[in-house]
Amino acid sequence: MAAPTRPVVEHVVMTGHIIDSLLLPKVLDAILSRGGRYHIEQFDLGEKQDDPSSVRIQVTADTPAQLDGIIAEIHPHGAVSADPKDCATSPADIPGAFPDGFYCSTNFRTQVRLSGEWVDVEDQEMDCGILVDADGKAARCVPMTGVRAGDRILVGRAGTRVFPPEAEARKHNLFEFMASPVSSERPKAVSVREIAAAMKRTKAAGEKVMAVLGPAVVHTGGAELVASMVRNGFIQVLFAGNALATHDIEQALYGTSLGVSLDHGLPTDEGHEHHLRTINTIRRLGGIKQAVAAGILKSGIMYECVKHNIPFVLCGSIRDDGPLPEVITDILAAQTEMRAHIPGTGFCLMVATTLHSIAVGNLLPAWVKVACVDISPATVTKLMDRGSTQTVGIVSDAEPFIRALVTEIEKG
Amino acid sequence: MAAPTRPVVEHVVMTGHIIDSLLLPKVLDAILSRGGRYHIEQFDLGEKQDDPSSVRIQVTADTPAQLDGIIAEIHPHGAVSADPKDCATSPADIPGAFPDGFYCSTNFRTQVRLSGEWVDVEDQEMDCGILVDADGKAARCVPMTGVRAGDRILVGRAGTRVFPPEAEARKHNLFEFMASPVSSERPKAVSVREIAAAMKRTKAAGEKVMAVLGPAVVHTGGAELVASMVRNGFIQVLFAGNALATHDIEQALYGTSLGVSLDHGLPTDEGHEHHLRTINTIRRLGGIKQAVAAGILKSGIMYECVKHNIPFVLCGSIRDDGPLPEVITDILAAQTEMRAHIPGTGFCLMVATTLHSIAVGNLLPAWVKVACVDISPATVTKLMDRGSTQTVGIVSDAEPFIRALVTEIEKG
Amino acid sequence: MAAPTRPVVEHVVMTGHIIDSLLLPKVLDAILSRGGRYHIEQFDLGEKQDDPSSVRIQVTADTPAQLDGIIAEIHPHGAVSADPKDCATSPADIPGAFPDGFYCSTNFRTQVRLSGEWVDVEDQEMDCGILVDADGKAARCVPMTGVRAGDRILVGRAGTRVFPPEAEARKHNLFEFMASPVSSERPKAVSVREIAAAMKRTKAAGEKVMAVLGPAVVHTGGAELVASMVRNGFIQVLFAGNALATHDIEQALYGTSLGVSLDHGLPTDEGHEHHLRTINTIRRLGGIKQAVAAGILKSGIMYECVKHNIPFVLCGSIRDDGPLPEVITDILAAQTEMRAHIPGTGFCLMVATTLHSIAVGNLLPAWVKVACVDISPATVTKLMDRGSTQTVGIVSDAEPFIRALVTEIEKG
Amino acid sequence: MAAPTRPVVEHVVMTGHIIDSLLLPKVLDAILSRGGRYHIEQFDLGEKQDDPSSVRIQVTADTPAQLDGIIAEIHPHGAVSADPKDCATSPADIPGAFPDGFYCSTNFRTQVRLSGEWVDVEDQEMDCGILVDADGKAARCVPMTGVRAGDRILVGRAGTRVFPPEAEARKHNLFEFMASPVSSERPKAVSVREIAAAMKRTKAAGEKVMAVLGPAVVHTGGAELVASMVRNGFIQVLFAGNALATHDIEQALYGTSLGVSLDHGLPTDEGHEHHLRTINTIRRLGGIKQAVAAGILKSGIMYECVKHNIPFVLCGSIRDDGPLPEVITDILAAQTEMRAHIPGTGFCLMVATTLHSIAVGNLLPAWVKVACVDISPATVTKLMDRGSTQTVGIVSDAEPFIRALVTEIEKG
Repeated sequence: MAAPTRPVVEHVVMTGHIIDSLLLPKVLDAILSRGGRYHIEQFDLGEKQDDPSSVRIQVTADTPAQLDGIIAEIHPHGAVSADPKDCATSPADIPGAFPDGFYCSTNFRTQVRLSGEWVDVEDQEMDCGILVDADGKAARCVPMTGVRAGDRILVGRAGTRVFPPEAEARKHNLFEFMASPVSSERPKAVSVREIAAAMKRTKAAGEKVMAVLGPAVVHTGGAELVASMVRNGFIQVLFAGNALATHDIEQALYGTSLGVSLDHGLPTDEGHEHHLRTINTIRRLGGIKQAVAAGILKSGIMYECVKHNIPFVLCGSIRDDGPLPEVITDILAAQTEMRAHIPGTGFCLMVATTLHSIAVGNLLPAWVKVACVDISPATVTKLMDRGSTQTVGIVSDAEPFIRALVTEIEKG
Repeated sequence: MAAPTRPVVEHVVMTGHIIDSLLLPKVLDAILSRGGRYHIEQFDLGEKQDDPSSVRIQVTADTPAQLDGIIAEIHPHGAVSADPKDCATSPADIPGAFPDGFYCSTNFRTQVRLSGEWVDVEDQEMDCGILVDADGKAARCVPMTGVRAGDRILVGRAGTRVFPPEAEARKHNLFEFMASPVSSERPKAVSVREIAAAMKRTKAAGEKVMAVLGPAVVHTGGAELVASMVRNGFIQVLFAGNALATHDIEQALYGTSLGVSLDHGLPTDEGHEHHLRTINTIRRLGGIKQAVAAGILKSGIMYECVKHNIPFVLCGSIRDDGPLPEVITDILAAQTEMRAHIPGTGFCLMVATTLHSIAVGNLLPAWVKVACVDISPATVTKLMDRGSTQTVGIVSDAEPFIRALVTEIEKG
Repeated sequence: MAAPTRPVVEHVVMTGHIIDSLLLPKVLDAILSRGGRYHIEQFDLGEKQDDPSSVRIQVTADTPAQLDGIIAEIHPHGAVSADPKDCATSPADIPGAFPDGFYCSTNFRTQVRLSGEWVDVEDQEMDCGILVDADGKAARCVPMTGVRAGDRILVGRAGTRVFPPEAEARKHNLFEFMASPVSSERPKAVSVREIAAAMKRTKAAGEKVMAVLGPAVVHTGGAELVASMVRNGFIQVLFAGNALATHDIEQALYGTSLGVSLDHGLPTDEGHEHHLRTINTIRRLGGIKQAVAAGILKSGIMYECVKHNIPFVLCGSIRDDGPLPEVITDILAAQTEMRAHIPGTGFCLMVATTLHSIAVGNLLPAWVKVACVDISPATVTKLMDRGSTQTVGIVSDAEPFIRALVTEIEKG
Repeated sequence: MAAPTRPVVEHVVMTGHIIDSLLLPKVLDAILSRGGRYHIEQFDLGEKQDDPSSVRIQVTADTPAQLDGIIAEIHPHGAVSADPKDCATSPADIPGAFPDGFYCSTNFRTQVRLSGEWVDVEDQEMDCGILVDADGKAARCVPMTGVRAGDRILVGRAGTRVFPPEAEARKHNLFEFMASPVSSERPKAVSVREIAAAMKRTKAAGEKVMAVLGPAVVHTGGAELVASMVRNGFIQVLFAGNALATHDIEQALYGTSLGVSLDHGLPTDEGHEHHLRTINTIRRLGGIKQAVAAGILKSGIMYECVKHNIPFVLCGSIRDDGPLPEVITDILAAQTEMRAHIPGTGFCLMVATTLHSIAVGNLLPAWVKVACVDISPATVTKLMDRGSTQTVGIVSDAEPFIRALVTEIEKG
């Protein structure tokens, strides 16, 4: 602090729907919040709403560190250097970790500049590094644990640009209600209608609908409803945990979910054992597919997935009993398996699971639309806080919500 | 503490289903928790489940005050003196307050002993005093503000006995699932089915179904569903506040609820004004009934209530805008009006309102069954904590739940 | 719909910090959302962050009704007609209601144009009308029920302009953390420090700190902490209900709160009666002040208020037992009494009460800063949703939070 | 249904505090709920509260299956056959699964009858099987995945008896307030005092205090408080996940937690990268211990654990970034590691984590007392619903609660 500091300066540009998307205000706010100053050098406001705007901003900070902080913060809002250079890489010195100064990815569409050309980054995913191919022609996101020694990993922000979804198009497209804050007091029929429409549109576009489901889907009585969506081709991939699958199979075998009768709603102590006996039965048979093949498992979500060749990924967690043979107990292996099913996904429906919703939200690129339904406002808020701008949160109860959704879908 | 104390003793008896209803265990626990000791002098356990049991307990305490505390606590569990006397009264010395030592009522069926006869207390309600008629032949509950100077008010617990519902019959009657703790993870179709059955049974018995509704019923899109229940004779009296009625009428006049379109779910700022304009319109017309008569109000919950002569009580609260002319702004007058509608009520459905649910829960006798539906577990728990043993709590979302309920009711 | 429509046009201007406050983006978004179109006729972006910006926008709509809707929505964001006229008024034809077309107030600073002069509106409050004095020199907000026949009431938006707080100054002033979304996962020491600083600053400025408290303040054990804040001059006015006051007095008289011992935390059934006996005792004495004078009430929040001449307003609600004599049972009278205490208030601390927080939030002008502390995220969100932009929400537990606040305040 | 059924009968006995612990009422209720009938053949009620009671009940059911259901449900309440036999075992036919009809363990103290002797089951844990040693002298709980082919696994309930904690002693021991339902409206100072006393008592008894912590402990600002508890010897083992450890280390390295400054509470976008950079830094160093040794990690919870040789188990989950090298990514391996640290644990403090709290609750025997603190009532209820009768739930905010706890502990 003793040494006199000289202001440092950088010029950035932004293009697109930067006013009505709030991107420019956010950038200006960020500069001020971090103690910097701005000067608008050039401003071209789209006169009509379809015209993109563009702005050139001079950012001044007191120290290089402060300037770095500002640039880091405004970068994901689409502010890029006015004077682009090629991106820089460092070789990974050890496996399973990035070199110092690595570039930290967002889930927004991103480009890197290689030999003067802007190239799309593949496998876009947040909180990864970016690996540039050996021949310097392509780049893709890579998780920390996927790094091999010698990999060329992007460092710094030079030669990168991101495209926040807001800048590319006005937001009222997939979800009319997307602007709404999280609240349990919204008209539910509207949410149901929009999600049904999004699922049909996704199906019509030849893209996959992904379902991410928690055990309350079964507890509240929604298993058969979900099974019908699988049967009728409205779900193309299922992510869940040991609990969802076990409760679903328990219902098929015993008519109970965690020992609570789905018919009369009464909990029973012995019923609690159904849970463990269900897992044991499936383990003895060798797995869910074998149980279907043996004619033991004859209904429910997992049954329909097997029957209709819908891939499912069951990810383990430390609270699991058993688990079922198909459960992937290593969490890195489970993440890898989930990643393999993301390409081609156009819509993701998350119901009643905090753990899996956040896990999947971490993996999805920003252009996959997500609807997250949970009875707890805290869960919905948590997911939306994690930078998943593509997410619409709905505070509602699993079974009644799914029931209304199935009715709406079947309207044709 | 210096003076030596001599143990004091009282003998109490209990009769009925005191074991499987948990009443005897609660009594023994209460004696110990308050530092007393018990001696089971006589015990007659019903051998079979239909046989009532009876027990005579000697309660010993160190001081009269401690003994009083014990007797006060075990009294509502049905423990009565083994040696009953007539009840005692004191004249109210000032209006609007009870004399010191007044008996504090529960919502359980209660009897008082007058001239050697056990007489049922009328207008049973919790947290009231008991007024004995001038001729000493009858008794009824009276709220504090209803006391006139000179009224004979019951003092002490002598000559009183209460009949906890648990002691009178096994609990699995109206609600099979009543034993369940509050949880969002119960099968919802069961709850819906049971409530629909209770409503039909109440209607068939010629008793009234009371609805207590909060504004989220309208926000979530359930107004037309409730309106259909009114139209079809499944609701005989409505308790609500200014907000429910205003939002319902706003929807009828503008198609919005607090400015949110029920059609496309989008909030609008001008829409917010709809709320105030609605109230102003109704005030200008003189009231809801006049608005219906004038052909201005043509649909919704309030419209159907007016059309079908369903009485409604709209109680004011300090957060009210306006309010509507029918809103009773004095809360004591509002309580009095609600009390007037309770006789003849056989079932009460509370949806999405903490304030009104607790207010009504305070007024209902313990034998009126209640279903309380709210998306917040805290609200449901709060109501069930307030001694409303007749209440079943359901954590669910207003509109989808009511939708399922209406479907179930209409199944016939 | 058959008749051909001709586009209608209006020109509006905005001035101030309209970019980084998000006001301009909101206005453009509103125009598009309502089906209108905009053309930026002139734009003057402040080059540096301290420079205000100004913009002139041509708004085009398909119908006059659509244009009205747009103007209504963008008006509270500070968009005013480019060609101002004097405001218009209508005489109230009946008491207790506004004339048709009345202007609906916000809680933002507002001016009306009277004889060519812009005049500040007094008693600024949301959801009111604006009454212009008989001599046409002054204007003030008036609630619907305050209207007398013949009052000159503002109609339409012509000749009015509002100043959203965001446009007047950047937001990082009172609360550094104000930008944060509602979350229980924020560093609590920061929130505590900021609120303590705001309370001290308010006190130093000779303004009042208002406390709005719910009964959980007492249940969780915070009564003595609040009492110490009253004693030490950090609370100048208290708004609460019958429950807060009764529980506080119950604790002073019996050591319990709703029958739960504050010493050992055990609930007792007899203790439940303490609640009613407390109210009865105070009613017999004539009121809280009389109880203090009689030496019966010797500690607690209400005691300190009486001792230090801190005014308190106890507002009735339909779930009240009793109530205490000081409770205002008519809700319009209670609102009037609350309004009387708002002038001079610089800071408002709301803890653990949804009902009173929303009621007070309805009455406060937008320039009074508010901190709302509640353990339920839903309550905090609900208050912040109601247009109270001056509010910071903190999800935390009443007693531990107040304890930390008192410690921080007493640090000096 | 066509074949005539003959009632089947079994005689069971219960001993201990079966009345005031509610065990006998629960058993009678269970018999009736499942359609059975009971006849009390002999009843010996302890006259005074210290006397155990005993009862012999004839249970009658319509079918052997119904009888089995009844016996299964009443068994965990301490009802055992009046005519005990040795327990029966089956050899495991395949590894990783129990033989059909296996006995499903509870977390209560359990004995099995081997050669006429009642023997304590070791490693008591719920939802396991029971393995009998090759020489038939000892038995222990074994999870499904721990079964090897040929293991002798207990089948059926014959020759087993469980000792519910309620039957062994009255409940008011560790936690005075244990009987209280989950509520945020309890006096918090009492909870704090009781937990502090339990921790001191555990330490004095030479037993371990186990802490199970979620990331909100760090977000809310409680890391240094927990660190001081580790430093001062009040925590002997730590269970957590990647997030808690990463946020704690992030705070030590950057002063932020998930990018939110713990000093001024402001979130920053770049700060979000701190999370990933923290993990990368520790991975590059080889682990947390190496980071401490290298002088890079110099404060916080993990630092103090390393410095004071407090073992920690970091369990992986599918939402993990990185993870840190010490994180056990296979969930079965993580469970095994947690199990290894349970013996010797006398008290368990769970704060702000649903996932880990439930996982640990699954592993603990019923005699280890647990306090579960979370700001969400749903989390606390969920844990208490899972049969963890030893758990006291406290709805409160992490940092303020821990701050009060540390103050109370340090009072000496």
